[in-house]
Amino acid sequence: MDIAKLTEGILDGKLRPLSRAITLIESSNPEHYEKASELLEALLPHTGKSVRVGISGVPGVGKSTFIEAFGQLLTAKGHKVAVLAVDPSSQLTGGSILGDKTRMEDLSRDENAFIRPSPAGSTLGGVAKKTRETMLICEAAGFDVILVETVGVGQSEITVASMVDFFMLLQLAGAGDELQGIKKGVMEIADAIVINKAEGENRQKAELARGQYVNALHILRPKSKNWIVPVQLCSALYNEGISDIWDMVCDYKEKLTESGEFEDKRKRQAVDWLWTIVMNDLKELFMSNKNVQSKLPQIQEAVVKGITPPGVASKRLLELFKRH
Amino acid sequence: MDIAKLTEGILDGKLRPLSRAITLIESSNPEHYEKASELLEALLPHTGKSVRVGISGVPGVGKSTFIEAFGQLLTAKGHKVAVLAVDPSSQLTGGSILGDKTRMEDLSRDENAFIRPSPAGSTLGGVAKKTRETMLICEAAGFDVILVETVGVGQSEITVASMVDFFMLLQLAGAGDELQGIKKGVMEIADAIVINKAEGENRQKAELARGQYVNALHILRPKSKNWIVPVQLCSALYNEGISDIWDMVCDYKEKLTESGEFEDKRKRQAVDWLWTIVMNDLKELFMSNKNVQSKLPQIQEAVVKGITPPGVASKRLLELFKRH
Repeated sequence: MDIAKLTEGILDGKLRPLSRAITLIESSNPEHYEKASELLEALLPHTGKSVRVGISGVPGVGKSTFIEAFGQLLTAKGHKVAVLAVDPSSQLTGGSILGDKTRMEDLSRDENAFIRPSPAGSTLGGVAKKTRETMLICEAAGFDVILVETVGVGQSEITVASMVDFFMLLQLAGAGDELQGIKKGVMEIADAIVINKAEGENRQKAELARGQYVNALHILRPKSKNWIVPVQLCSALYNEGISDIWDMVCDYKEKLTESGEFEDKRKRQAVDWLWTIVMNDLKELFMSNKNVQSKLPQIQEAVVKGITPPGVASKRLLELFKRH
Repeated sequence: MDIAKLTEGILDGKLRPLSRAITLIESSNPEHYEKASELLEALLPHTGKSVRVGISGVPGVGKSTFIEAFGQLLTAKGHKVAVLAVDPSSQLTGGSILGDKTRMEDLSRDENAFIRPSPAGSTLGGVAKKTRETMLICEAAGFDVILVETVGVGQSEITVASMVDFFMLLQLAGAGDELQGIKKGVMEIADAIVINKAEGENRQKAELARGQYVNALHILRPKSKNWIVPVQLCSALYNEGISDIWDMVCDYKEKLTESGEFEDKRKRQAVDWLWTIVMNDLKELFMSNKNVQSKLPQIQEAVVKGITPPGVASKRLLELFKRH
């Protein structure tokens, strides 16, 4: 594989080299690793010029319909939009929330949109790493809006929030009078809450829900003094309120760029990402150590049973690891 | 040092051996490490019989006054109460939020109370490890209520929540009509919110704040179907509502013991603690590697500047580490 040629094709905005590059990144073949690294280093100077938007919400909230409407609005405005996904459930099913392109039929036919299903992977960290690197390649190929979708499962939302500039949580007004519960940790990473399906007789419920979310957000300390987390209503199905959501993202980018927070956040994300990978790699090295493997089950069991204090157990495991 | 004798003294509930044991645990002298491990393993079968309560809140919320009132209520009921602290600021100042015993003058004179200042330490993880081990020793010495205090700085609240059975957050109704902002991540780990200084003309504001917190909590998914996070009012200064708070802790313990969640949580905490220490120890080993040390600054800088992709940087660092 000629990396120089591949690089050139991507920088020219051609889709075939882009797809080949992503396949290379996603490959678990160790021989592809060096090539992928070489490619990434060549492309890195050409990355970073997009707005990275994370979109999360439980199944049924209307994410596909929303992304279809949002993506088409953006391409109509002249943007090039890439849609990626971090889907922890693809570990189990081998499938992907974005595998089925018919979910976003019109957007997938749009020549200024690029939809890539969630990569397979045995860990969320692995899936996230591939998605991050794919995001960079898409930027190098000229995509200036990256939408990273995820479902509300486990840690995936926190993982996505750590790779995007703006993280929005799609919610429903909920059945009956009940608000839809927000998962632990998510309300606090959201840069906006968007209540979808605020249409017809649902509209009033959605207005009510907005008030409740605004109150709830009010008691959290704001992440930035330059940004109060908005709660917006929209109907992706009827294409209402979608344009306001893009205006909101632009407003965010403008305000935080001016204060320097936008750039700071990206730098912090890069360093955090480095350390997340280092710690994952270290843990993998540790767990693949034969001495550790042979003793770990009984040492961990002794901790659970209250026989060995955790601090003592850790020192023993580290001794086993250092012995090689 | 005769560990068998020390163990015996602690199990007899004597304070002098208890203090000596804690000093041993807190020692950073590597020679003391083996002794401390031996002691911990000997005491471990005698631990676990207390209720572990975490108490957090920003400076000015009245934590000392609250703990003084709460602790005296408990000793009057026949309990033996240990007050420990996880104070990340002691890293910087060398001091401690609990260094000054005059903060809890009456409680510190109570023979059924034991107040121990926050240990010194260069990392929050180190401070937390010592506090956890001290907690175990106090349990072996017959203390049946452990209060672990912390201030609302950085990760300290999440650290304390991970070592206690019940985590309560002290809040104020706030000045004016404003609610006091709750820090990221904390609302979601609280098992109760307690609004202190609900006295005199503050009472009405506190009632209002309670309603707002109840609403905010309502939109979070509950951690357990057997526990709805209560929002209680009290006045530590006038000793009002303190007894209700203890009743609440007992109620929690009873309900979650019945459902099995109480025991499950402790087991999970032990395993999590083990892995936290293992990862800390691994990181320390990694950072003390000469090859890693010599290249880390420039590799990290290249990541921040967008020259090296984090995944590539991590692989390089791991290669340096493996080479020894």
